[in-house]
Amino acid sequence: MKVVVGVSNRHVHLNNDDYKLLFGDIPLTKRNDLTQPNTFASELTVTITGSKRSIENVRVLGPNRSYTQVEISRTDAYTLGVNPPVRNSGDLDGAGEITITGPVGSITRNAAIIASRHIHVDKSIRREHNLEGVDIVSVKIGGEKGGIIDNVYLKETEEAYFELHLDTDDANAHLINQGDEVEIII
Amino acid sequence: MKVVVGVSNRHVHLNNDDYKLLFGDIPLTKRNDLTQPNTFASELTVTITGSKRSIENVRVLGPNRSYTQVEISRTDAYTLGVNPPVRNSGDLDGAGEITITGPVGSITRNAAIIASRHIHVDKSIRREHNLEGVDIVSVKIGGEKGGIIDNVYLKETEEAYFELHLDTDDANAHLINQGDEVEIII
Repeated sequence: MKVVVGVSNRHVHLNNDDYKLLFGDIPLTKRNDLTQPNTFASELTVTITGSKRSIENVRVLGPNRSYTQVEISRTDAYTLGVNPPVRNSGDLDGAGEITITGPVGSITRNAAIIASRHIHVDKSIRREHNLEGVDIVSVKIGGEKGGIIDNVYLKETEEAYFELHLDTDDANAHLINQGDEVEIII
Repeated sequence: MKVVVGVSNRHVHLNNDDYKLLFGDIPLTKRNDLTQPNTFASELTVTITGSKRSIENVRVLGPNRSYTQVEISRTDAYTLGVNPPVRNSGDLDGAGEITITGPVGSITRNAAIIASRHIHVDKSIRREHNLEGVDIVSVKIGGEKGGIIDNVYLKETEEAYFELHLDTDDANAHLINQGDEVEIII
């Protein structure tokens, strides 16, 4: 079956305490909705810094979460000098140390991960696409730099938009763009 | 069968005329040998510029060739603002416009490509590995961000070191490092 692709550029999720340290009383205002229900790109950005370099203008997503997490690509990791593991969102076991700087302050956290390839589903999407009981799939990508990507996790939330999230390394390696359709292999 | 991986960062090949325009009488001195016989990374670098930005310190490889070619990743292409096609080395059909700047001068050429995934072979390597008559293979990559990459061309030269060349997008997307071994699927 087909699934549409969303390409995730580097971004930051913050918990409320870290948000206050970085932004103080500045509100987390929405710039635009994201495809997943009740998520948005904010107007706010931060600078992230590793042992080698910084990257500016990294988008803060909303709403705030219970954990602070910086999602970067392997390419970003080399640029920054950070050593992030591949993790599902919210699993910060072994996450790389990274400094986040906002207009009010700066924090250093073990928060940097490379997000696992994942497909957003909810119970009704699982039923509709015969994905009940399935945790990991592969995905076939066509084109001049196509192939098959393995270890794509199904991420179930209460309400979801059916979409494969790839980081910019996976997207650029395979010449994939936001909105392209690819084939799930179970 | 297994093949070792070489990761190709962005780099430049020059023809003799373009070399003179960029470097004048500065000699193309070797910094270090590359794995393919009779090829080397020189001491020299250039700046490459597209419609949006520049990237500095791009290595010039030697010896000079009969054509000027700039090999970049899709990630580089977005950074620069260049639109390169995927091409085998030496095939500049539809290559992207890019400006190359050296210490003596600057040239603008339709020379930017994303190199096709390729494996270097010679006749004896083909015989040894039962690759005679094979032009394109796939490669299986293990690990947390593994999978299969398609459209890997066999590139035959008179004398070769048996090696799969991937650009930094393919390497980083799959968490592959220089010297890793992967499996050829025919």
